[in-house]
Amino acid sequence: MSKKNRNIELTQVTLWEDGNATRVEDYLAAEEPLEMRAGQYSLGVTLRTPGDDEDLVAGFLFTEGIISRREDLLALQMPGDTDTERNLVRVTLDPSVRLTSNSAARRFSAGSACGVCGKASITQLRRRGLHRPTAASLFDPEMLCQLPPKLRETQAVFVRTGGLHAAALFAPTGELLVVREDIGRHNAVDKAIGWALLGGRVPLSGHVLLVSGRGGFEIVQKSIASGIPLLASVSAPSSLAVQLARELGLTLVGFLRGRRFVIYSGEERIALSASVAAKAS
Amino acid sequence: MSKKNRNIELTQVTLWEDGNATRVEDYLAAEEPLEMRAGQYSLGVTLRTPGDDEDLVAGFLFTEGIISRREDLLALQMPGDTDTERNLVRVTLDPSVRLTSNSAARRFSAGSACGVCGKASITQLRRRGLHRPTAASLFDPEMLCQLPPKLRETQAVFVRTGGLHAAALFAPTGELLVVREDIGRHNAVDKAIGWALLGGRVPLSGHVLLVSGRGGFEIVQKSIASGIPLLASVSAPSSLAVQLARELGLTLVGFLRGRRFVIYSGEERIALSASVAAKAS
Repeated sequence: MSKKNRNIELTQVTLWEDGNATRVEDYLAAEEPLEMRAGQYSLGVTLRTPGDDEDLVAGFLFTEGIISRREDLLALQMPGDTDTERNLVRVTLDPSVRLTSNSAARRFSAGSACGVCGKASITQLRRRGLHRPTAASLFDPEMLCQLPPKLRETQAVFVRTGGLHAAALFAPTGELLVVREDIGRHNAVDKAIGWALLGGRVPLSGHVLLVSGRGGFEIVQKSIASGIPLLASVSAPSSLAVQLARELGLTLVGFLRGRRFVIYSGEERIALSASVAAKAS
Repeated sequence: MSKKNRNIELTQVTLWEDGNATRVEDYLAAEEPLEMRAGQYSLGVTLRTPGDDEDLVAGFLFTEGIISRREDLLALQMPGDTDTERNLVRVTLDPSVRLTSNSAARRFSAGSACGVCGKASITQLRRRGLHRPTAASLFDPEMLCQLPPKLRETQAVFVRTGGLHAAALFAPTGELLVVREDIGRHNAVDKAIGWALLGGRVPLSGHVLLVSGRGGFEIVQKSIASGIPLLASVSAPSSLAVQLARELGLTLVGFLRGRRFVIYSGEERIALSASVAAKAS
């Protein structure tokens, strides 16, 4: 892939629409980890869309208060084009800039040694022993289409403030078990899964997790860690989310709206032919 | 505020609609920091919507791989109802759980000692010496309404993938200077501000930052750090974002759609009476 087009990726997906499933091409927003280093000091790793990385690092250092002016940033270097190096930025700061463990900011994890590419992140998750989630029977597309309306009915705070994300857990039959809301997408997911854990319901084999926002890398990872076989969202997943879902065997559904959705991964868990046949009969 | 209603807050805002400005009440999604501690070990701080905190912490510990089963979590305690303690969770883990510096996960900053309430977070930002942003003249509401269409015209990747957030910087006249896209809202903002920093345009007095997502606490903080006097979003801000904007003097506009927007903070920078008068003449 050329350097210029690193912010989008083309992939094959299955579009389900009103009972018909077709194989189509779709664009994904690219998501890859980026590590920043100042000398031997790792400022951390963030998941970002490749492109304008110099701007990202300069803006991050400045808005988080690590540097206070343009002149503090002496040099900013993207080392190369290999898988590892294209996601690494080396910065040289003015000697007057003091780095403390607190200056590594909120979104950046402290000292990840993962090698900083999507592949390495996935390898790291495999080492945690994440297993392919299971489901006893196929998921009915018609059942999936009923999930967003069920979520909306219960989502009181979102409607009032317009500011919250929701995560909902559904039983294999489509019964709504719990809805949790939070201003942070990941927090809403943690709350729903935490509810299940405290209630002794984990692993969540056969269950569906529906999120109101995007199905990103970390939400795919959280789903798999909990044994959830199907993650659905009303929006688009990232490239890294799709890659992880495919490698670890999660069924990933996006753009679930009305009688239409896109399957990015694991379509063998969805009763596609049955529903197509049902429509033809 | 009762414990039950901690997830929403009621506040006074100014609604501008088609030339008319009115003072109305509005609900905000609450956002406050939460710190997790295991013994003397701080697992970090996250910004979350209060409520279901036990679920959040249990889910976080489990999905991030810090604990691997329900039984690893021996106790989970919210110490009290004071400003500091209601945002602190103490967990007791099974002695077999090994905490390393790497287990403090992505979204959680390492060892914040900020006292963990919104007020303390704002005090900490004041200590960084953030100043009230300035603008030489008032902002015209009609100019503000033109900004989202200008952003949409240039936002190619968002349209294709549906998965990216955008941040755009506008000159005081409303001229679009730069658009940056990323799968992360904060990254898009860092890219736009980083572009300005590298080009010698900081502080961005008189400029407008428009974000496609929500105007949260961290984006307000980044705007103020860069000297931006007006932050606009097409969506809702959080309670902590509004609180910070009011205390540090940022004009915060939300739900900027068509010929309508809500002013949450700093309406003295917007030419309200002039525009109302213009409509009446």
